[in-house]
Amino acid sequence: MITPAEIDTAAQRIGAYVRVTPCIELEPRAFGSPATLTLKLEMMQHTGSFKPRGAFNRILSANVPEAGVIAASGGNHGAAVAYAARTLGHMAEIFVPEPTPDIKVDRLRRYGARVVLIGTSYAEAYAASQERAQETGALDVHAYDQIEVLAGQGTLARELERQLGALDTGTLDTGTLDTGTLDTVLVAVGGGGLIGGVAAWFAGRVRVVGVEPERCPALYAAREAGEPVDVDVSGIAADSLGARRIGNLAFLIAQPYVESVVLVADEEIRSAQRNLWDRLRILTEPGGATALAGLLSGKYQAKPGERVGVIVCGANTDPARFG
Amino acid sequence: MITPAEIDTAAQRIGAYVRVTPCIELEPRAFGSPATLTLKLEMMQHTGSFKPRGAFNRILSANVPEAGVIAASGGNHGAAVAYAARTLGHMAEIFVPEPTPDIKVDRLRRYGARVVLIGTSYAEAYAASQERAQETGALDVHAYDQIEVLAGQGTLARELERQLGALDTGTLDTGTLDTGTLDTVLVAVGGGGLIGGVAAWFAGRVRVVGVEPERCPALYAAREAGEPVDVDVSGIAADSLGARRIGNLAFLIAQPYVESVVLVADEEIRSAQRNLWDRLRILTEPGGATALAGLLSGKYQAKPGERVGVIVCGANTDPARFG
Repeated sequence: MITPAEIDTAAQRIGAYVRVTPCIELEPRAFGSPATLTLKLEMMQHTGSFKPRGAFNRILSANVPEAGVIAASGGNHGAAVAYAARTLGHMAEIFVPEPTPDIKVDRLRRYGARVVLIGTSYAEAYAASQERAQETGALDVHAYDQIEVLAGQGTLARELERQLGALDTGTLDTGTLDTGTLDTVLVAVGGGGLIGGVAAWFAGRVRVVGVEPERCPALYAAREAGEPVDVDVSGIAADSLGARRIGNLAFLIAQPYVESVVLVADEEIRSAQRNLWDRLRILTEPGGATALAGLLSGKYQAKPGERVGVIVCGANTDPARFG
Repeated sequence: MITPAEIDTAAQRIGAYVRVTPCIELEPRAFGSPATLTLKLEMMQHTGSFKPRGAFNRILSANVPEAGVIAASGGNHGAAVAYAARTLGHMAEIFVPEPTPDIKVDRLRRYGARVVLIGTSYAEAYAASQERAQETGALDVHAYDQIEVLAGQGTLARELERQLGALDTGTLDTGTLDTGTLDTVLVAVGGGGLIGGVAAWFAGRVRVVGVEPERCPALYAAREAGEPVDVDVSGIAADSLGARRIGNLAFLIAQPYVESVVLVADEEIRSAQRNLWDRLRILTEPGGATALAGLLSGKYQAKPGERVGVIVCGANTDPARFG
């Protein structure tokens, strides 16, 4: 299992390479909620999502061979691995399925990666990346199911808690844990890297609630089945949250430490995106607004005065297509 | 003149109604700058710009008559006055020139204002609003040339300084002023309400630099002439920074307390907008990126290690038109 101490270590390891992203504490009754809401603005992280936290931690934990690092993803994970590799002076090979849009391929290349277009699905691209890693010895950076990746993502929760402690008590970065500052944290779930890290950090001290699109229900289905199972994925958030199966590590951590998982409809995600823009001038991708959608839709019912943290985890979208 | 004590008072007065907007401290060499950059994310303020600070302070400082408040502006100021009036339970009449786009008029109406379309220019709408105020006794809220408005905008600088002090020294909201945390602050200039308030707060303790579009040079021209003079306004930022003449109060404060004013081209503003999106997922209107354009264009040359605050002051734009 992943301990808070491992997440502390990860935070030290990656501190020079990732941004401390800001929080905003909202006014009473913001979005009509009876809760006290704090948004963690992680879409301002390098590459526009939380993913560099895990990628840097994985890469910095290893002896990276000449062949560099390898990953399979045309999305946020691929961009984060390419960015981290370039920053640290390693080669990166990123495997993506052939139907990946040019705009995503170009982005990976701008981060200096060698992009391999192969297969018709993520699963095929992933299999090809594994085979290639066997040949070259490159370090495989998984999108969510590796201990170092989860520990890296968990640094987001550690940072949030420290920031809220500072807001409350007038101290910042003292390392003091004051769980009185947060009752609940809402986290969007794809393959489970982020919620696994967040749940490992809080370890039951704070209520962790997962929010999944109805059409990408990997964690919800796994909890129903009692084990990770394959699900169909589709809908507007599938490009960032569309894992076909929850990660094993995330599932193990979530069983004791994630209180509940709620499902939201695509139109509820769109509504949360619109609300973030209209009321806060925060533009996100669908996956980045999914945690908030859990609250605004009423699928997660916050109590009056409940202190709720909402992670805004990504904004890799084309503004011109918004609305 | 406006003193820091008046800005303290304004901050107490408006504290319940405006957001404490977050800052983000950027990594070394962000945007290729040798300076240490902190962005003040004021576009997350209510209505998407800093303007509610001044509007609330003006309205809360007065005995508002039955007739409510009145202002002339189809832009950020009008929205802020309408929002503040509704929040405080007052009527608001907002005068705008007839060519104002429907989208802006609708927005004012959504904030509950009565909108009066009159004249062909801002000057005509403003004159009509003054006449109307005479008739009804409504409280006039000027876009920039009133003491209470400037004092309200100055709370942004006070807040920024306290936040940076907290980042540096581990204390927050203790009221201690630690000017060791900031060398320079870059501020976009339209009619001068924001820079007047910021300069009044720092009063020479921090270098205040104004940034104006080349095609909206009200403060630059006034400093050349030694007094406020009329200028032609046009270009991409004219809707938020296009004042034809700098405010008298702002000019008086700027003379001793604004070190320099730099001019940026429209394409430099566009480039700053693109950089904010590409590297930080911050979407702004042109006026909101103008202060950063002063730095990125090299028009303001920061020294290595100089601690520079950049105010991102507005994001009232249609994402679909971005790019």
